Amino acid sequence: MDVFIEPIGRLINQFSKLPGVGKKTAQRYAYKIIGMTEAEAKEFAESIIYCKQKVRYCKVCGNFTEEEVCEICKRRQGTAICVVKEPKDVIAMEKLHEFKGVYHVLHGVISPMDGIGPNDIRIKELLARIDGTVQEVIMATNPDVEGEATAMYIAKLLKPLGVNVTRLAHGIPVGGELEYTDEVTLSRALSERKSI
Amino acid sequence: MDVFIEPIGRLINQFSKLPGVGKKTAQRYAYKIIGMTEAEAKEFAESIIYCKQKVRYCKVCGNFTEEEVCEICKRRQGTAICVVKEPKDVIAMEKLHEFKGVYHVLHGVISPMDGIGPNDIRIKELLARIDGTVQEVIMATNPDVEGEATAMYIAKLLKPLGVNVTRLAHGIPVGGELEYTDEVTLSRALSERKSI
Repeated sequence: MDVFIEPIGRLINQFSKLPGVGKKTAQRYAYKIIGMTEAEAKEFAESIIYCKQKVRYCKVCGNFTEEEVCEICKRRQGTAICVVKEPKDVIAMEKLHEFKGVYHVLHGVISPMDGIGPNDIRIKELLARIDGTVQEVIMATNPDVEGEATAMYIAKLLKPLGVNVTRLAHGIPVGGELEYTDEVTLSRALSERKSI
Repeated sequence: MDVFIEPIGRLINQFSKLPGVGKKTAQRYAYKIIGMTEAEAKEFAESIIYCKQKVRYCKVCGNFTEEEVCEICKRRQGTAICVVKEPKDVIAMEKLHEFKGVYHVLHGVISPMDGIGPNDIRIKELLARIDGTVQEVIMATNPDVEGEATAMYIAKLLKPLGVNVTRLAHGIPVGGELEYTDEVTLSRALSERKSI
């Protein structure tokens, strides 16, 4: 794109690296930066560096943290562990303000197609956390093929340790419509029906 | 959003300032930054500062430039001046590789509703550029109310100076369909019909 002068072209390239951002959107973002005051642009740039430098992974659960151990691991009892794929899933769960246990972030799921085996994700670390105090492990990996397989694999390892393993329920989303629910979900909702 | 630790929350706030970016998208962008290497994040941040520091406005035409006068003003003859609202419109025109004249960026359009009068945009600077060598001024402001009004206003000022003032044609977009063309556009296309 030789129509852009070099500093603008360079910034557009950087913005294009963000997920779902094409050339056109990156261009709009670059114009926005040019329209900012110098102080605003500096603040923006510094927040990127600051975030990258400050954010680490909790050495216990693998969640985002600024310190060695995250706030959740520090403050809560570990009688229930919720196992998720990524740190952002912890945030999704925390927004509920319902789960009062701790988390374990796998940092991926088993996916033979992508060459990711059980040893490539944090399963060993999860097993090491299972002691007498843990009563339940909730498998909250995504309801896709890899997420299901990973949940099953981990459940098999945990059961001999005498721990109660559960899985998030599948079914029709609340507020959804039967007509637009995909067949697999509807079939699961039927087979897992409950008496009322 | 107290579910985010401070460095992530701060970055999400910054990304939310970009046009069309809500909390959810800003969150995705922040995760992307966290997933980058330190060097990549630094490069990203630096390209923001670099772009903001390097990009200035050409003192002749008002276009983006790294130097005092932009490349277009330096290299081209000013016999035709294309008047646009913003620097990004210059880029849109340049992508055609058809117009070989120079530009004049108004940095806005007359909009009494927003308190923007003729003295708030670069009209004086345009008039100062009109000398014997300028043969045509093409009004390429947007085809909205303010853009049209601004084009008319400037045309009125230019005509006594003996310069040929033109306006980009209105009509059905190429590849468009009559059925989906709005009424105002269709009406303009009809009244400005040409013999073939």
